[in-house]
Amino acid sequence: MSIVVVGSVAYDTVETTRGSIKEALGGSASYFAVAARFFTPVGIVAVVGADFKPENRQQLADRGIDLRALEQKEGKTFRWHGRYHEDMNKRDTLALDLNVFEGFAPNLLPDQRRCDYLFLANIAPELQEYVLSQVMSPKLVAGDTMDHWIEATREDLIKLLPRVDILTVNDEEARLLAGEHNLVKAGRAILAMGPRSVLIKRGEYGVIQFSKEGMFAVPAYPLEDIVDPTGAGDTFAGGMMGFLARHGRITESSLRTAVVYGSVMASFVVERFSLDRLFDLTWEEIDSRYRAFIELIDSHHSRWITQ
Amino acid sequence: MSIVVVGSVAYDTVETTRGSIKEALGGSASYFAVAARFFTPVGIVAVVGADFKPENRQQLADRGIDLRALEQKEGKTFRWHGRYHEDMNKRDTLALDLNVFEGFAPNLLPDQRRCDYLFLANIAPELQEYVLSQVMSPKLVAGDTMDHWIEATREDLIKLLPRVDILTVNDEEARLLAGEHNLVKAGRAILAMGPRSVLIKRGEYGVIQFSKEGMFAVPAYPLEDIVDPTGAGDTFAGGMMGFLARHGRITESSLRTAVVYGSVMASFVVERFSLDRLFDLTWEEIDSRYRAFIELIDSHHSRWITQ
Repeated sequence: MSIVVVGSVAYDTVETTRGSIKEALGGSASYFAVAARFFTPVGIVAVVGADFKPENRQQLADRGIDLRALEQKEGKTFRWHGRYHEDMNKRDTLALDLNVFEGFAPNLLPDQRRCDYLFLANIAPELQEYVLSQVMSPKLVAGDTMDHWIEATREDLIKLLPRVDILTVNDEEARLLAGEHNLVKAGRAILAMGPRSVLIKRGEYGVIQFSKEGMFAVPAYPLEDIVDPTGAGDTFAGGMMGFLARHGRITESSLRTAVVYGSVMASFVVERFSLDRLFDLTWEEIDSRYRAFIELIDSHHSRWITQ
Repeated sequence: MSIVVVGSVAYDTVETTRGSIKEALGGSASYFAVAARFFTPVGIVAVVGADFKPENRQQLADRGIDLRALEQKEGKTFRWHGRYHEDMNKRDTLALDLNVFEGFAPNLLPDQRRCDYLFLANIAPELQEYVLSQVMSPKLVAGDTMDHWIEATREDLIKLLPRVDILTVNDEEARLLAGEHNLVKAGRAILAMGPRSVLIKRGEYGVIQFSKEGMFAVPAYPLEDIVDPTGAGDTFAGGMMGFLARHGRITESSLRTAVVYGSVMASFVVERFSLDRLFDLTWEEIDSRYRAFIELIDSHHSRWITQ
């Protein structure tokens, strides 16, 4: 089953303690699509400027990503410049230029309106709603958001949540959205706003999933070397939703496996700058790290019950 | 199999966003022993002052904890005063009075020298070595330490590590001991210093265990209400080692189960101030939360291998 992702395709300038990169391919839709493409076909709905390099388009096309709805307009591509602290869970945005992304009206192609899987990456809730209104009867809708939308367009976001099956947020966003510092209470409060599942991303500390069936928590895969955390959340979402679209059944069990595959994909992308690691990744590496991940979290269930 | 724990019995004054408590029973040996006692017999080797209240001694004795080596001396009991931030992983020590703990020479009783399980709580490495030299042929030695000892008595600590089977440290202590920010590299570097297993405690983010067999990571049990994190690490160690002593076999599998039981015990102690929650805890509650914990981390292993 194919996925449609609506989000950004951008040029990122990133500084970390491990080095820096200038105007490299980035954006939520890019990370999501390249990760999801390992599992299932995926199409990007986004806009880039006249300066978008043919070689970057080619990199995405080479992976078999559907780019028919990647609009190219006069003007410059969306640019972001960020600097990470030594604690890579923290970063400062040094510059953000929306450029052609300002005034972006995402329009799905006729066949994309019949898609079963839709990912609404981090854009204005109003735009997310606009996209959702174009899709006929999606099987699964997942969405991301950020502090800016929670604060500036709270009502739009609240209105959208009942139509989103899976919401992904980080811990600070969850606290802000719920108005509650405790993460368990925040997770349950957001569930009550409508989504079937809330995935709280905690960077190097992993993910907690809340659903009506209960909680599922995984650590992040411990890495010896983290070069650039940019795109980890969208790559997680790509792996997670890619697995679900390929698997085809949405159950508590498949959601948990999806969280593990999402974590596995995120563990790769941070190993190098930009999308570099995803571009040379093989299925054998994904499968091998999936097995290592299961070994990492496997408690062996040797419950000891006598007392 | 019974455990001997050497550490502190103290009076703690604690302030958290949820309230405060003044001169309540605390200390590493108290938390460890009360948690471990749910699994196996345990004896405390420590010192208290003339002001130590008979009711506190009675609380420990009522749980069947062996107090023959809990020395009472002229002077005041060890006192600690701490204040936690809203982010309860952070705290400030406002006052620390060693009192009778200064000049403490822990002496084991003849039968305790033949113990199979020994926990060296957070005291000077020199004292930990002194205790270790009294024990004949322990089956398992676990030890804790802190930033102060790592910085002030590094050589003593390094000398001790090959004689410790399991070392418990928090993430900052691991980084300091290894001289390495990355936690995976730090864990492996500490393993190379001698312990069979290194348990890195990350507060609300759970625990990572490093051993020659690999890594095991668990999240902390997500709680709706955390009142006081004091003693969580020692309670974790008590549950972990209590399980191992009861189980009797030290394997990668039993170590993993022990980490889960430790996490379960720690999840209770933080629900109330001081040792209050541990004192009214039942085995049924432990067993119920153990099952909830396994459900929390169970990925269902529904690996999907076709590509």
